[in-house]
Amino acid sequence: MFNNAERAQTLVEALPYIQKFYGKVVVVKYGGNAMTSHELFDAVMEDLILLRLVGIPVVLVHGGGPEIDAMLTRLGMESRFVNGLRYTDRETMEIVQSVLCGKVNKDLVATLTRLGASAVGLCGIDGELFRAVKYGGGELGYVGEITRVNPGIVLRAIDAGRIPVIATVALGEDEDTAYNVNADTAAAKLAIALGAEKLILLTNTRGVLRVFGDEDTLIPQITLAQIPELQEQNIIAGGMIPKVECCRDAIDGGVRRTHILDGRVPHSILIEMLTDSGNGTMIYDN
Amino acid sequence: MFNNAERAQTLVEALPYIQKFYGKVVVVKYGGNAMTSHELFDAVMEDLILLRLVGIPVVLVHGGGPEIDAMLTRLGMESRFVNGLRYTDRETMEIVQSVLCGKVNKDLVATLTRLGASAVGLCGIDGELFRAVKYGGGELGYVGEITRVNPGIVLRAIDAGRIPVIATVALGEDEDTAYNVNADTAAAKLAIALGAEKLILLTNTRGVLRVFGDEDTLIPQITLAQIPELQEQNIIAGGMIPKVECCRDAIDGGVRRTHILDGRVPHSILIEMLTDSGNGTMIYDN
Amino acid sequence: MFNNAERAQTLVEALPYIQKFYGKVVVVKYGGNAMTSHELFDAVMEDLILLRLVGIPVVLVHGGGPEIDAMLTRLGMESRFVNGLRYTDRETMEIVQSVLCGKVNKDLVATLTRLGASAVGLCGIDGELFRAVKYGGGELGYVGEITRVNPGIVLRAIDAGRIPVIATVALGEDEDTAYNVNADTAAAKLAIALGAEKLILLTNTRGVLRVFGDEDTLIPQITLAQIPELQEQNIIAGGMIPKVECCRDAIDGGVRRTHILDGRVPHSILIEMLTDSGNGTMIYDN
Amino acid sequence: MFNNAERAQTLVEALPYIQKFYGKVVVVKYGGNAMTSHELFDAVMEDLILLRLVGIPVVLVHGGGPEIDAMLTRLGMESRFVNGLRYTDRETMEIVQSVLCGKVNKDLVATLTRLGASAVGLCGIDGELFRAVKYGGGELGYVGEITRVNPGIVLRAIDAGRIPVIATVALGEDEDTAYNVNADTAAAKLAIALGAEKLILLTNTRGVLRVFGDEDTLIPQITLAQIPELQEQNIIAGGMIPKVECCRDAIDGGVRRTHILDGRVPHSILIEMLTDSGNGTMIYDN
Amino acid sequence: MFNNAERAQTLVEALPYIQKFYGKVVVVKYGGNAMTSHELFDAVMEDLILLRLVGIPVVLVHGGGPEIDAMLTRLGMESRFVNGLRYTDRETMEIVQSVLCGKVNKDLVATLTRLGASAVGLCGIDGELFRAVKYGGGELGYVGEITRVNPGIVLRAIDAGRIPVIATVALGEDEDTAYNVNADTAAAKLAIALGAEKLILLTNTRGVLRVFGDEDTLIPQITLAQIPELQEQNIIAGGMIPKVECCRDAIDGGVRRTHILDGRVPHSILIEMLTDSGNGTMIYDN
Amino acid sequence: MFNNAERAQTLVEALPYIQKFYGKVVVVKYGGNAMTSHELFDAVMEDLILLRLVGIPVVLVHGGGPEIDAMLTRLGMESRFVNGLRYTDRETMEIVQSVLCGKVNKDLVATLTRLGASAVGLCGIDGELFRAVKYGGGELGYVGEITRVNPGIVLRAIDAGRIPVIATVALGEDEDTAYNVNADTAAAKLAIALGAEKLILLTNTRGVLRVFGDEDTLIPQITLAQIPELQEQNIIAGGMIPKVECCRDAIDGGVRRTHILDGRVPHSILIEMLTDSGNGTMIYDN
Repeated sequence: MFNNAERAQTLVEALPYIQKFYGKVVVVKYGGNAMTSHELFDAVMEDLILLRLVGIPVVLVHGGGPEIDAMLTRLGMESRFVNGLRYTDRETMEIVQSVLCGKVNKDLVATLTRLGASAVGLCGIDGELFRAVKYGGGELGYVGEITRVNPGIVLRAIDAGRIPVIATVALGEDEDTAYNVNADTAAAKLAIALGAEKLILLTNTRGVLRVFGDEDTLIPQITLAQIPELQEQNIIAGGMIPKVECCRDAIDGGVRRTHILDGRVPHSILIEMLTDSGNGTMIYDN
Repeated sequence: MFNNAERAQTLVEALPYIQKFYGKVVVVKYGGNAMTSHELFDAVMEDLILLRLVGIPVVLVHGGGPEIDAMLTRLGMESRFVNGLRYTDRETMEIVQSVLCGKVNKDLVATLTRLGASAVGLCGIDGELFRAVKYGGGELGYVGEITRVNPGIVLRAIDAGRIPVIATVALGEDEDTAYNVNADTAAAKLAIALGAEKLILLTNTRGVLRVFGDEDTLIPQITLAQIPELQEQNIIAGGMIPKVECCRDAIDGGVRRTHILDGRVPHSILIEMLTDSGNGTMIYDN
Repeated sequence: MFNNAERAQTLVEALPYIQKFYGKVVVVKYGGNAMTSHELFDAVMEDLILLRLVGIPVVLVHGGGPEIDAMLTRLGMESRFVNGLRYTDRETMEIVQSVLCGKVNKDLVATLTRLGASAVGLCGIDGELFRAVKYGGGELGYVGEITRVNPGIVLRAIDAGRIPVIATVALGEDEDTAYNVNADTAAAKLAIALGAEKLILLTNTRGVLRVFGDEDTLIPQITLAQIPELQEQNIIAGGMIPKVECCRDAIDGGVRRTHILDGRVPHSILIEMLTDSGNGTMIYDN
Repeated sequence: MFNNAERAQTLVEALPYIQKFYGKVVVVKYGGNAMTSHELFDAVMEDLILLRLVGIPVVLVHGGGPEIDAMLTRLGMESRFVNGLRYTDRETMEIVQSVLCGKVNKDLVATLTRLGASAVGLCGIDGELFRAVKYGGGELGYVGEITRVNPGIVLRAIDAGRIPVIATVALGEDEDTAYNVNADTAAAKLAIALGAEKLILLTNTRGVLRVFGDEDTLIPQITLAQIPELQEQNIIAGGMIPKVECCRDAIDGGVRRTHILDGRVPHSILIEMLTDSGNGTMIYDN
Repeated sequence: MFNNAERAQTLVEALPYIQKFYGKVVVVKYGGNAMTSHELFDAVMEDLILLRLVGIPVVLVHGGGPEIDAMLTRLGMESRFVNGLRYTDRETMEIVQSVLCGKVNKDLVATLTRLGASAVGLCGIDGELFRAVKYGGGELGYVGEITRVNPGIVLRAIDAGRIPVIATVALGEDEDTAYNVNADTAAAKLAIALGAEKLILLTNTRGVLRVFGDEDTLIPQITLAQIPELQEQNIIAGGMIPKVECCRDAIDGGVRRTHILDGRVPHSILIEMLTDSGNGTMIYDN
Repeated sequence: MFNNAERAQTLVEALPYIQKFYGKVVVVKYGGNAMTSHELFDAVMEDLILLRLVGIPVVLVHGGGPEIDAMLTRLGMESRFVNGLRYTDRETMEIVQSVLCGKVNKDLVATLTRLGASAVGLCGIDGELFRAVKYGGGELGYVGEITRVNPGIVLRAIDAGRIPVIATVALGEDEDTAYNVNADTAAAKLAIALGAEKLILLTNTRGVLRVFGDEDTLIPQITLAQIPELQEQNIIAGGMIPKVECCRDAIDGGVRRTHILDGRVPHSILIEMLTDSGNGTMIYDN
């Protein structure tokens, strides 16, 4: 009986948060290393389904680096790097497209379905969701930079009560070539185009740390105004730099709140959204 | 952190129940003595709001005996009884209508609003929701028996995302007289007309007890087929008889599950609907 | 035959007026002494129904002073006055709410239904229609001043072809307390929120009279610009002052025409709206 | 004042009739000699507009014999008769089509518009409203017999709030030839296809008379069962025979009430529909 | 087989043109001498139907000079001319209305129906499509100048998938008189009101010719800027002047492209719209 | 000029076919060897787009055997056969899913987009379009047999004006495993679920041949009743057997016409659908 009372209490405490986010779109970027644990994976999927069911539309944007690497290795295709970024020739791009849109994307849809949601797997080619041109001077091959987002196909899926799952492959502006685009950036641009309330980047760290490697030094909130200083102090550094910039761009484009969450904590999305405990680092404009 | 994990777990455990009841109407009858504790009162209201927010439309049907009695006493109007049932003359009926439709009903709407819901208070006169004739041979005065239910006005309120709160006063078939109708019966008839999934009668007992007065002898489930025998054995007895009959009629009319719940347990509706712990007595057809 | 021709003529003469007001909302304030004659009462109800049927949506706003007084007297509750205005303590407010929302309101709905309309009884608590704070310094107790009008619930009832009947009790801004609000003011504010074409205040006088007590000195039309002078001349005086101010506020808020009509003349609303004979005093901006 | 009260009374008396016919389609056949007086003409148009405004959709079906005759005479085209019916050769049919669809029809639309309605003039060719084959053995030339009614184009005009005005020219089944069809019959078939409540044939007699030529012997009501006997007794005779048969066919096809009204009485449609005085002869099934 | 391949090729070549014009309204003015050949007539109708079927809504505006002249001659009514324009007295106007709205208009509808389309014949009186006042000082009698276009009735016909066929008779502003209006002008004004993509004037010349009478000197394209010079050079001369001015006005009002096409070439509309061969003279703004 | 006339003629000849199929769904199965020529490929895509544009919704179902084989060979994965059918272990299934859903499917969407259509790539996992169980006794591994089709996601794409492109991978009934399903069968089942007018199987033969290898002996039409005899005579033999059975099943399920077309003929779909030349073998019920 006691246990039941506690459970009921938890549900009731979620009430004001559900009211707050009701009907507002949340874009979740999930991928890479954060996706590897099987148990955590199911926990993330359950979070998405719960949000959708209580009336908060979610969109899942994913990458799939480890699965792509595995396939390239099996095929004996070695990766060449230009200024630290992977060069993607046409043959590599074909593998990227197959694995991301055909394997990772549809597996996510299958899992969401098994857990009781209605989902649909799309990529940037479908309905011209993402249009792109070659990134930079083209020295990275088929790595693209998103030029336009046509969110109609995603909005229709949301209206139909589905969870759209988006693989970050884009359609070239001039021909029917596919481009590999950065998943964090794609998630941010999609969040803007959807007028999203929130952008959540699931990572495998606790968030932005004041002291490198010391998870007890998590900075729970950063305003846009604090970013330059934190960059100068090298606190926002390494892989965190592009993530923070994605968040900043999303906020500049109208997204209200952005979060860098720890994908290793089970149900970190629910804890962030439906309890009074924050989680990870929130980046926002005040 | 641990605490958060537990909370998240509870939310996730609610998932299959939310999925199961999504979009299905639940009619809750609440009233009389079960309504007296202020704290429990708020807990019931929170349960209704939470269900509504997670996509389960709820309709609240209420009586208001104690508040009516208090007013009659203040006015020095004594109650006459016929075969143990209160005789309602025209003057008494006017007080019943004032208190039920004007006081109790609107107070419930105010509370639901304070807690964050959108609600509307209606009675059987509005939109001709309940039509009635004199009960029996009319020897109880303005006590009515429901003849027709026109659920349109309630359905529209549900569609608008509101919680309809229904006072059990009905409009006479032949003139514009109001009749006092039994709240349990009205809830059952409304549940049928709405094609409800569930009818919940909140009472101030644990449910049907095998041994009178011993709450440890709760019978958690009763099928329609078992009712006659339980009545013969005097296990279904006294005030439980009409409640069980309401449940039976509701099921005969197409309602899938009916529950006699203990209104004294905080959040007993949530516990019943969103956890794997049952609660009170469920009456159903197998 | 001749009689029929006359009747047909009357109907045909109504044609341009029906065309003029088709689909435009008319708010009618009715209450107090104007409500006392039973025959006149039915005549007012018939007018409302006829307007609704020919495509002119009507909203009925009512007070209920006499019925409230009667109940307070029966309960031995005496009214205390502050600067000539009735002080409403919590206990009195409960009686006001019961009688207005439970008795007067639902009786009006019942009568409209008996005469063939579809109606719904609401008060300012339902759907948060009227929000209020304590009037003035709070020296009148639970007398409120309307701060916000959320007309959604009334608009939906209109769309469903119903006549909304509104009891002038409001919901407090900060808690779930009910406030008694002035019915003329509430009608004016609702007319503004609905973008109404007309506000009609039914009274028990002929309108604004040039000579006090002499009904032959009716002033049929007053422009906003004439009001200050008429007030100085004491022609707009006594109980007429707040009524004229309601009309002025309504017009300032976008209502096109306001009328102070004589509720003692049978069908004065129809005569005003569907014939070429004016009636009472029209206050407007030119 | 007295006069106003009478007027209001008339409007209020119309109330139950408006309620009864609200939203139900009324098809009015008007034409030939009943159309000649200019004043009566406007009175008929006003009746139609008033019905439309109070929510009763009307459809006007018209012939135009006198105007056709006038044009044929001007052109020196003589009419040949076969068994008492006018033979219509191709050249005559062209004149019929021009005058009916181009002159009479559009003049009716112009008048309805001048009086404040929104109207549209159509004929049986538009949207394939009426399909026809040659009448009988074809010995009457381009006189047609309606084979199919496609009421879609009329229903859409009704939905748009317009009064459809229908010229009784039909499109041949096999080629794109136009046929002249009987206006009473066309009105009856259209009433059936529209699921109309009423078919009204405006004529220039009082209705069916028991004694030929004596208008005081009007038979106000005839049931289907009485028709054969009245035909045997020669009471239904001459031009009344096809009119009564149209009414009978309409009722057999589902129209609830049919009326042969006196088009010479101003506003006879309003008197019939919105007062308690009958008018002309009603033919119905009991 | 070869022949089939060619056919398929033609269909495929039409693809980009269909894509370009999909859902965009095209107004075609057709009339007078261009309407005389029976074979060409069917070819024009087929073009309209094909455009409609591939998703390009077409509106047909027509005059009917030759048929009107024939009828006036038969009636012995001589035409008087004022400054080279035909004077239209009331009697003549009645003939114009009858022939245009009743004969030519409905014959076009019948032909379109025979060829498989759904069509509806309307004139400027229906739904007050065209309102007009007397042209100039009224010295031409019932010749009108369009003052307002209410395209609602045409838009609804388009939405219902029909081809609206419009006779160019307008309703007077002040009374219910009909006016004869210039068909080219009416087509241009309707094209503007509909936000049309294209206005096509079908004539019986090849287009604007550089050398009078020499069809090999067709000028395929004229920009607005070139018109004044071409007028000064007398290249745009005679009957071409008002046609070019209609085109110019249409473009000023927002129509994108206007065409003066040769109605004597079979399927000249299709050739213009669905192949890469231009046809006639296009007038546009660059 | 002459050439244009011919082109216009071809377009006009397509008119009755467009009318016939307007708004009716056509399912096209395309894949395997028929997909290999680049030019033919574009011709097929153009056919689909043209049909869609003229109002005939098309759905493209594809396989992708050659691309799967190529990838398996690159990975050194050899195919094992059971009774002549390829055994699909889990590892192979992952490659099938990647290539079909990620590569072939999205490439088709990209090409349709380049040619001007709006398209979306889906597989049987999305929206639970295809549910399946293990084929036969499971001796083929992850080869599935379709148990249910939920066409909602395809219908919504059609409603949005898109061309749905469907990869024939299905979701297991019990777990979230993907199954490889036969593309012809999937197309037939989808055609049934969509209530399609036509199922077209594009192959690399002329159709059913009376004499093996002799394309001059094409049988243009086969009724359901003739199938058993043609099977006995070994005329329907080899790979033609399952194709003919798919057609038969589709017709049994309500599809009106099925076609085995020669994918090597450019625009064979257009020739079949929009000209009077048949093409390949039509299988139907008479």
